[in-house]
Amino acid sequence: MKINGRAYRTIWLSGDAWSVEIIDQTRLPHALVVARLESLEDAARAIRTMQVRGAPLIGATAAYGLCLALRRDASDAALQAAIALLAGQRPTAVNLRWALETVAAVVRRLPPPARAAAAYDCAAEICEGDVAANSAIGVHGSRLIRDIAARKTRGERVNVLTHCNAGWLATVDRGTALAPVYAAHDAGAPVHVWADETRPRNQGAALTAFELGAHGVPHTIIVDNAGGHLMQRGLVDLCIVGADRVTSNGDVANKIGTYLKALAAVDNGVPFYVACPHSTIDWALAAGRDIPIEERDAEEVLSLSGRTPQGDVVAVAIAAPGSPARNDAFDVTPARLVTGLITERGICPPSRAGLESLYAEAR
Amino acid sequence: MKINGRAYRTIWLSGDAWSVEIIDQTRLPHALVVARLESLEDAARAIRTMQVRGAPLIGATAAYGLCLALRRDASDAALQAAIALLAGQRPTAVNLRWALETVAAVVRRLPPPARAAAAYDCAAEICEGDVAANSAIGVHGSRLIRDIAARKTRGERVNVLTHCNAGWLATVDRGTALAPVYAAHDAGAPVHVWADETRPRNQGAALTAFELGAHGVPHTIIVDNAGGHLMQRGLVDLCIVGADRVTSNGDVANKIGTYLKALAAVDNGVPFYVACPHSTIDWALAAGRDIPIEERDAEEVLSLSGRTPQGDVVAVAIAAPGSPARNDAFDVTPARLVTGLITERGICPPSRAGLESLYAEAR
Repeated sequence: MKINGRAYRTIWLSGDAWSVEIIDQTRLPHALVVARLESLEDAARAIRTMQVRGAPLIGATAAYGLCLALRRDASDAALQAAIALLAGQRPTAVNLRWALETVAAVVRRLPPPARAAAAYDCAAEICEGDVAANSAIGVHGSRLIRDIAARKTRGERVNVLTHCNAGWLATVDRGTALAPVYAAHDAGAPVHVWADETRPRNQGAALTAFELGAHGVPHTIIVDNAGGHLMQRGLVDLCIVGADRVTSNGDVANKIGTYLKALAAVDNGVPFYVACPHSTIDWALAAGRDIPIEERDAEEVLSLSGRTPQGDVVAVAIAAPGSPARNDAFDVTPARLVTGLITERGICPPSRAGLESLYAEAR
Repeated sequence: MKINGRAYRTIWLSGDAWSVEIIDQTRLPHALVVARLESLEDAARAIRTMQVRGAPLIGATAAYGLCLALRRDASDAALQAAIALLAGQRPTAVNLRWALETVAAVVRRLPPPARAAAAYDCAAEICEGDVAANSAIGVHGSRLIRDIAARKTRGERVNVLTHCNAGWLATVDRGTALAPVYAAHDAGAPVHVWADETRPRNQGAALTAFELGAHGVPHTIIVDNAGGHLMQRGLVDLCIVGADRVTSNGDVANKIGTYLKALAAVDNGVPFYVACPHSTIDWALAAGRDIPIEERDAEEVLSLSGRTPQGDVVAVAIAAPGSPARNDAFDVTPARLVTGLITERGICPPSRAGLESLYAEAR
């Protein structure tokens, strides 16, 4: 997708054909900075510090992290150590484990001297596969938006509420939850997005608003508290969110607060969709209660960064001095609150049977 | 209540016996600053800029605003103009109108020269009445906390979730939603409060955490997104919030986001109580859909103030440059989601019949 007219992905191979470049998302929306990853440790740090974030992008970065590791040492021991290091950086998004297993399955069969090159090929395939899956999610999901537009008075906008950032910045490109929005917008549908701020890390105000603005999609930032009220007032036609992990029964782990929006959607008869490529589905887990929920540093709640009028970016403390905080990063939305899952193969009910109707190979 | 061992109210008559002093709540939690109101316009500004906030305290400040107006000009015309000015500062909290009507009903009967003194007496009565009502709410509501404590293992804490600030800083003293917490804590119950941050103005992180900390009540700040997840995990025993207006059918207007917590409480079987003195009940409105909802400046969403490491308080922009925001300040929680109303006369179901069982004079 484009920023100021220039096409970007969130991650790409450098001109040297071995190191990896990323958009440093901890610097957005205040500055557009590209960071370079030259080692396994760089990749692990980028995931942990959320220079890259979003389940699909975490997976892609982990895949390149293995490439960087194998380039240095392609032994079985080094491979295992690299997988363990990368897998431990973030516990909730299953794409991380999926990407590591995908690369490992390819390289384990090969003699060590052939492993690094094969890993780079595999990482590139993961990235291209992510973009293709997201484009397909866009095609399937945009029908939901265009169907609503067709029922409205000509020119009346379709209001989509989203939580956190599941746009192109959360993926290699195109996005998951926002792929349908971009597809509908590009096809001329009058779509407007309510972007939940998404405390504590403000991915909605900082990233979703940034990328929608850069693409010219009408949008409005709201605090996380506001979505229920807007639904009560008839100002939300559709919710679409991403996912960090979907269990085989259709339960959805996503950014903390997703569950509250799903409750409000059901209470107001607003459809609530979850966009997820196959890499986000955890066939091994039967239900959401078993998903490990990451608890992050309380400091993320107690302070935040912003731009001063002089243009400096500074961190400020916002809470009562001495008060503690708790910072669970995700919650689980039960399948009963979800209208449907938008995958690259189509839209299905959030259930084992629904998922198997699209992914027969998982039966 | 006490700050650093010294007893405060949020509003009091100065030593000169005519001007009014308030804690400037726009400066908390970073600084404890007392501001002085010397005119009707000072009082109106204090309400509009939220130097004072919280439905009961808005009412008390408006009452003193009328005193300051009548001191300057006690004519019928001046009285009417002062009422109109003050009533227009905040639309949602009904206590504002209630306090103005209470003072006006007293002074209208009197010749102009007697009006200012009577208004000061009436404003003082409103303040004392508020403290007494809140103390009674504390007595009634603390039983809920002590009942839960009695069902727990000895020493296991009772977790109360609250939204926004309905503590003593939202009233003249004692608080509404936090009055039961203070009463239970002071009686030795092991109570712990989850304080919702309450974006966009962060009254939870800034004010609720500040006053609970100052009184020694164990508490933890959480983002507004987190409460549903904590309820799913069994970490919330009880929700208590305040109200800006309760309609005669038991619907509750309160800080934006209250509705989302009520939905989560019902979904998880957690009792959801609303603490409200009689001055918050709007007998004239049949249902919550008729309550005017204040829309505030979008800038409150797009930037906020905090302390730098050097101790300066600065405003920083936190959102993508150029993105717009919308800022509805309140939402309406339907009576069907509310377990009970905690009033100064006891606890009742959120319904016309329930309210009339306590306020027979309203029949």
